[in-house]
Amino acid sequence: MARPDGRTPNELRPVTITRKWLRHAEGSALVEFGDTRVLCAATVEDGVPRWRRGTGEGWVTAEYAMLPRSTDTRGARESVKGKIGGRTHEISRLIGRSLRAVIDFKAMGEHTITLDCDVLQADGGTRTAAITGAYVALVDAVKYLRKHRNLKRDPLTGSVSAVSVGIVQGQSRLDLNYLEDSVAQTDMNVVVTGDGQFIEVQGTAEGAPFDRSSLDGLLDLAVDGCVRLTEIQKKALVG
Amino acid sequence: MARPDGRTPNELRPVTITRKWLRHAEGSALVEFGDTRVLCAATVEDGVPRWRRGTGEGWVTAEYAMLPRSTDTRGARESVKGKIGGRTHEISRLIGRSLRAVIDFKAMGEHTITLDCDVLQADGGTRTAAITGAYVALVDAVKYLRKHRNLKRDPLTGSVSAVSVGIVQGQSRLDLNYLEDSVAQTDMNVVVTGDGQFIEVQGTAEGAPFDRSSLDGLLDLAVDGCVRLTEIQKKALVG
Amino acid sequence: MARPDGRTPNELRPVTITRKWLRHAEGSALVEFGDTRVLCAATVEDGVPRWRRGTGEGWVTAEYAMLPRSTDTRGARESVKGKIGGRTHEISRLIGRSLRAVIDFKAMGEHTITLDCDVLQADGGTRTAAITGAYVALVDAVKYLRKHRNLKRDPLTGSVSAVSVGIVQGQSRLDLNYLEDSVAQTDMNVVVTGDGQFIEVQGTAEGAPFDRSSLDGLLDLAVDGCVRLTEIQKKALVG
Amino acid sequence: MARPDGRTPNELRPVTITRKWLRHAEGSALVEFGDTRVLCAATVEDGVPRWRRGTGEGWVTAEYAMLPRSTDTRGARESVKGKIGGRTHEISRLIGRSLRAVIDFKAMGEHTITLDCDVLQADGGTRTAAITGAYVALVDAVKYLRKHRNLKRDPLTGSVSAVSVGIVQGQSRLDLNYLEDSVAQTDMNVVVTGDGQFIEVQGTAEGAPFDRSSLDGLLDLAVDGCVRLTEIQKKALVG
Amino acid sequence: MARPDGRTPNELRPVTITRKWLRHAEGSALVEFGDTRVLCAATVEDGVPRWRRGTGEGWVTAEYAMLPRSTDTRGARESVKGKIGGRTHEISRLIGRSLRAVIDFKAMGEHTITLDCDVLQADGGTRTAAITGAYVALVDAVKYLRKHRNLKRDPLTGSVSAVSVGIVQGQSRLDLNYLEDSVAQTDMNVVVTGDGQFIEVQGTAEGAPFDRSSLDGLLDLAVDGCVRLTEIQKKALVG
Amino acid sequence: MARPDGRTPNELRPVTITRKWLRHAEGSALVEFGDTRVLCAATVEDGVPRWRRGTGEGWVTAEYAMLPRSTDTRGARESVKGKIGGRTHEISRLIGRSLRAVIDFKAMGEHTITLDCDVLQADGGTRTAAITGAYVALVDAVKYLRKHRNLKRDPLTGSVSAVSVGIVQGQSRLDLNYLEDSVAQTDMNVVVTGDGQFIEVQGTAEGAPFDRSSLDGLLDLAVDGCVRLTEIQKKALVG
Repeated sequence: MARPDGRTPNELRPVTITRKWLRHAEGSALVEFGDTRVLCAATVEDGVPRWRRGTGEGWVTAEYAMLPRSTDTRGARESVKGKIGGRTHEISRLIGRSLRAVIDFKAMGEHTITLDCDVLQADGGTRTAAITGAYVALVDAVKYLRKHRNLKRDPLTGSVSAVSVGIVQGQSRLDLNYLEDSVAQTDMNVVVTGDGQFIEVQGTAEGAPFDRSSLDGLLDLAVDGCVRLTEIQKKALVG
Repeated sequence: MARPDGRTPNELRPVTITRKWLRHAEGSALVEFGDTRVLCAATVEDGVPRWRRGTGEGWVTAEYAMLPRSTDTRGARESVKGKIGGRTHEISRLIGRSLRAVIDFKAMGEHTITLDCDVLQADGGTRTAAITGAYVALVDAVKYLRKHRNLKRDPLTGSVSAVSVGIVQGQSRLDLNYLEDSVAQTDMNVVVTGDGQFIEVQGTAEGAPFDRSSLDGLLDLAVDGCVRLTEIQKKALVG
Repeated sequence: MARPDGRTPNELRPVTITRKWLRHAEGSALVEFGDTRVLCAATVEDGVPRWRRGTGEGWVTAEYAMLPRSTDTRGARESVKGKIGGRTHEISRLIGRSLRAVIDFKAMGEHTITLDCDVLQADGGTRTAAITGAYVALVDAVKYLRKHRNLKRDPLTGSVSAVSVGIVQGQSRLDLNYLEDSVAQTDMNVVVTGDGQFIEVQGTAEGAPFDRSSLDGLLDLAVDGCVRLTEIQKKALVG
Repeated sequence: MARPDGRTPNELRPVTITRKWLRHAEGSALVEFGDTRVLCAATVEDGVPRWRRGTGEGWVTAEYAMLPRSTDTRGARESVKGKIGGRTHEISRLIGRSLRAVIDFKAMGEHTITLDCDVLQADGGTRTAAITGAYVALVDAVKYLRKHRNLKRDPLTGSVSAVSVGIVQGQSRLDLNYLEDSVAQTDMNVVVTGDGQFIEVQGTAEGAPFDRSSLDGLLDLAVDGCVRLTEIQKKALVG
Repeated sequence: MARPDGRTPNELRPVTITRKWLRHAEGSALVEFGDTRVLCAATVEDGVPRWRRGTGEGWVTAEYAMLPRSTDTRGARESVKGKIGGRTHEISRLIGRSLRAVIDFKAMGEHTITLDCDVLQADGGTRTAAITGAYVALVDAVKYLRKHRNLKRDPLTGSVSAVSVGIVQGQSRLDLNYLEDSVAQTDMNVVVTGDGQFIEVQGTAEGAPFDRSSLDGLLDLAVDGCVRLTEIQKKALVG
Repeated sequence: MARPDGRTPNELRPVTITRKWLRHAEGSALVEFGDTRVLCAATVEDGVPRWRRGTGEGWVTAEYAMLPRSTDTRGARESVKGKIGGRTHEISRLIGRSLRAVIDFKAMGEHTITLDCDVLQADGGTRTAAITGAYVALVDAVKYLRKHRNLKRDPLTGSVSAVSVGIVQGQSRLDLNYLEDSVAQTDMNVVVTGDGQFIEVQGTAEGAPFDRSSLDGLLDLAVDGCVRLTEIQKKALVG
C-alpha cells in the first residue's frame, strides 16, 4: 500500500517553479512536480482571433505539447505526423479554459496571451503541472500588458492551480506519478481557484466505475493539494 | 426563470431511440433528445489495432462528427479542412472511454467494435445523446459478435447512459438545450452506469467558478436523469 | 434475367422525398431511392467565393460525402484520413454543375447556396439520388433568398433530376441498385432538366466497350426515368 | 464563325507523338495537340495494390498533373498546397479507366503499370491528349513486361484514343483549344477504342442544356476524330 | 580511374540551354547537362509576399520538383503524399537564394518572379543544372518586367551559374553524373557569379571527412566549370 | 567594429554542456552557446528503417525543432501548421549527416539512434550548437548500445563539433549571435571532426558574393573554434 516514492496519500511531490526561465517571453516558468518538468511561456500579442475582433475584449489561449523523448519511449513528433492527436488537443483546450476562468477579457482590451506549455520530461500529471506553471507565466505577461498597453484595471481576477488525484489499489492519492497513474482505477484532474472554487473537475473510471463517496474523497484531496500549490505559486511570484 | 421550452428543471426533453435504423450496420440507433438527432452505427470487425494484437483482448472505439448543416450556421467539413478539430477528438475519446467501461475485453476476443456517432441535427447535448444511443447500437453489435464468432461469455458488463446538466441563471437544470447551454455558467457532462455509478464526470466553469454544493446538486440531477434514460434504453432494446 | 428486386427493366425503385427534414437549413430533403438514403441540406450565405466577388453574380456549390457505415463494410472517414478521395471530389463537382445549370446567377445577387449531400445509407445511385434531392432543397433555399434578400426575379430557370442506367447481363436497366451496379458492363449517369434536355451524360464501359445503339437505348431509358422523378419532385414541393 | 486558328469544324490540331522521350521509363511519349504538350511515362512494377493481391491479376493506374506554369497564369503546386484538387483526381481516374478498358488483367499477372501524364504546356484538351499519348507509352510498357516477365499472352486487347468535342457559337467542333473550350456551351470528352466503340462519354452543359440531336452530332464528330488519332498512334508505334 | 562516360576529370557533360521552350511563361529554358533535363519557367506577378509589402522592394523565389519517373525507379508524387520532402525544400531554397544574389530588389519594385524548376529527367546535378537554367529564364522575366512595368534601372546585377564537383575514387571531378554521385566520397555544389565570386559553397563528406587541400582542389575545379557555363548562358541569351 | 557582446573576432560565447539532463533518454545534453539553449536527447531503438533492413548495419538520424517562444516573436508550431518547414528539414538533415560521419554502421548492428534537438531558446547558431551537443548525447547512447546489445567494437570513429562563422561589417567573426547573424554579409556553418577534418562546409552570400580569400579566412576561424569546442565536449564527457 506504500506509494512508490514513499509519500503519504495526501502528499505532493517536491514542486518547484523557476520564474522567468526564458529571456524572450513576456512571462515564463519552468515548473517541476517531481520528475515532471514543463516549460511554460506566455506571449503577448496585439489583436485577437478573427471571431473576436471588434468586441474590445482580449483572449487567452494555450498550446500543450510533449518533446519526443520526454517519455520513457520516444514518441513521434506531431509536426512530423502532420497532425495533432486527440490527447494534445484536449489538454491544450483544458489549459486555455482553466486560465480564462481568472481573466476579465474586457480589462485586457483586444490583446491575446498565448501560453505554450512544452513538456520537457514527463512523469505523470503533466497537464496539471502545466496549468500551475502557466498561471505564473500568465501573471508576468499580464503585468507586461498592463505596463506597455496602459490598461486601466487588472485583467487578473484570481489565481488558479491544478492537481491530479486518483484511486490506486483502493486508496485515494494526491498527485499521482506515472507509475501510479498507469495503474489507477479512477483518475481525476481538478482545477481550483486560489479561493477554493472549482474551474474544472474531470473524473474518469479507468477500470471499474466509481461511486459518489469515492468522488467526494478525491475532491477533498484535490482541493487540499491546490491550497498548497497556491502557496508555492505565491512564493515564486514574489520579487 | 422558466426554461425556454417550458420544462421543469429536472425534466428531460422527449427522448426517442429508433433501433436498427440502418440496414448494413451490425447495430444502429437514431437517438433524439428533443431536436438533437444523432445516428449511431456499430461496426464489428475481426482483429484489433496493432498495439493490442496478440493479447487475446478486443477493443471498442468511437468516432463522433457533425454534419455541416446540423447546426444553425453551416460549419466547414473536417474532411475539407483536412484535419479534425480538438472538440471532435475530445468527444470521440469520451464516447469510446464511456462504452469501454462496460465491456469485458477478454470476453470479446480479438475483435473491434467501432461506434460512429454522426450528428444529423444539433440542439445541445450531442455528446451525451451519442453515448446514450451508441450503447443501444453496441448491444446489438455485441449480440452479433456473440452469435457469429461464438463467444463463450457476454462481453457486456453493464449499461451506460449520459446526460448534461448545468447552472443557468443560477438554477441547476437537467438536459440543457442549445439555448440554455450557450448561457450556462457551469456545464457538466455525466456518464453513469445502469446501476448508478460514475464513469465520467466533466464539469466546467464557463463563467464564474462553482462551489462544492453546486457540484453536488448537479451530480444528483444527472444521476436521476440517467435512471430515466436507462429505462428508455431498455424499452428500445426489447423485441 | 430478372432484376434482384423483381423490377421491370424500366422501373424505378420506390422513391420518396421528405422535404424540410432539418430544422436549421434554409432548404432540406431526405431523399430515398429504395435503400439509398441521402440527406440534402441547402445553406444560404451572403457573399461569394473570392474569385467571383464584385461580379454581382451568385454561386451554387455542393459537397457530397458518405457516412462511414452507409455501406456494407465500414469506410474510413475522409476527415480522419485528412484528405478527400477522388470519387468524393468528382461527385461533389457533378452535383454542383448539375444544379448550376438551372440557376440564373445574375438574379441571385452575390449570395452563395451550398448543397450538402450526405449519404446515410448506400445501395447504388447515391449521386443521382443526391442531385434529385438537392434540387428540392435548392428550391426552398431559393425561396428563402428571394424573400429575405428581396430578389427582383427568380434565380431558378428550370428543374433538374438524375438517374443511373446501365447494361446488366446484356439488358439495359433503369436505376441500378448496388448489386446490379457492381456487375454492370456499362454504367451511365444522366442528368436531365424538367423539359427533357441534357445537363450531363457520363457513360463508362466497366467491362467491354459499348456501341452507339447501346448508348442510344440507355439515354432513352434515362430520359424516361427523369420524367417520373420530375413528377415526384413536384409533389414533394407542393404545400 | 471561323475557328480562332482557322481550322474547319471537323479538323484536328497538328498532332505529334514522340515515342521514348524518356530514358528511364519502360514506355514514354511526348504528345502534342497543337500547343498542348503532355509528357506520358509508363512505369512497370512487380506486385499490385493491397486490395488486389493474391488474385493473379495485374493493375493499370494513372496520375495526371499540370506543371505550375503550363497555363497562362501560374497555378499553385498541389504538393505545396498539400492536397490534390478535384479536377486532378477526376482526370487521373478517367485516364486510368480508359486504359484499363483495353487490358486483360489476367494476362498481366500481378504487375502494375502506372501512367504519369504531366502537362508541360496547356492549350485545351489536356486530358484527351494524355489518354492518346499514354496509350503509346502503355504499349511499350506492356512489351517490356511481356519480355522481362515472360507473359504467355498479350495483355493488350485493343487500342484507345480520345478527343474533345463541343458546341461553340452554335457550331459543333472537334478538338477545342483553350480559347474555344472557355466559351463552349457544351463540352464533351469521348474515349474510343481502335475499332470505334465507346469507353467513356462525358458531356456537360456549360451554359444551356443540350438536346439529343446536338449530342448525336458531337458523338459523330468525336468518333471520326479518333479514327485519325488511331492512325497517328500506329505510325508512332512503328519501328 | 576513367570516368563512366569517358570524360576527363575537369570536363563538363554536353550542356544545352533551349531558351523560350514554353509559350505562356515570361521566361523559360529547357536546360540539359547530359541526360539531366530540367524545365525552368519564370513567372512575373505583381505584388510581393505579405511580409515584404510596403517596402517598395521585389522578391525572387523558386520551386524545385521532380517528375515521378524522372529517375530510374518511380518516386511517389509529393502532391499525393500530401507533403514536400526535406530534399525538395532544401533545393528550392538553394535555387531561390542563388538567384536573389544577383538581383537588386529596389530596382524591381513590388513584383515577384517565381522560378519553377521541374526535373523531367535526372542523371545527377539536377540542382546545379536548375540554377544554371533558371538564370536564363530569369533574364527574360526581368526583361519583361522592365518593359511592361517601366522599371527605371536594371534589377539584374550579375549572372549566376552552378556546378557540382566531387571526389570519386580519390580523384577530384567536375559535373558528376548520377553514377559518380552515388559513389562519391565528397560531394560539393558551388554557385558562382559571372565574375567568379562565390554565392554558395556546400560541401559534404559522404564517406570519410575531407581535408583542406581536397576542399581547395574542388573549389578550383568548380570555379573553372562555371566560367564555361557562363559562356553557354551568354550564347543562349543572344538573339 | 566592436562585437555587440564585446567579444574579440575569434572568441566563442560562453559554452556549457550539461550532460544527462534528461532521465529517460539513453543519452542527453543541454547545450548552451551564450543565450542559445538546445536540449539534445538520444534514443536507442532496435531495428532500422525499412530501406536498411537486412543489411546488418545501423542508422543514426536527427530531428531539429524550435519551441514556439524560443525566439523573440512567437512562431507558429509546425504541428499546428500540419507541415514541417524547409528550414527545419534542412537543419535536421544536416545534423543527421554530421553525426553519421563519425559512425561505423556495421559496428552498430541493426539499431537506430535518433537525436532530438529541441531549441528552448534561440540566439543564433542553433544548428551548430545542436550538432555540438548532440555528439555528447550520442556518445552516451552508443555506450548504452555497446553495453546492452553487446557490440563487439566501438561504432564511434571520431568526434564532431560545429560552429558558425561570418563576415559582419567586413570583419570575419566566430560564433555569431542572432544580432550579428541577421546583418552578416556572408554566413558559414562548418562541421569539423576532432582531428580537424571537414564534414560539412556551408557558406552562403547573404548580401554580396564573397571571394576566395574571405572563404579561406572563415574556414581558418571555424577550424580553430572547433578545436576549443572539442575540448569542452571532452570535459563534459568525463566522469
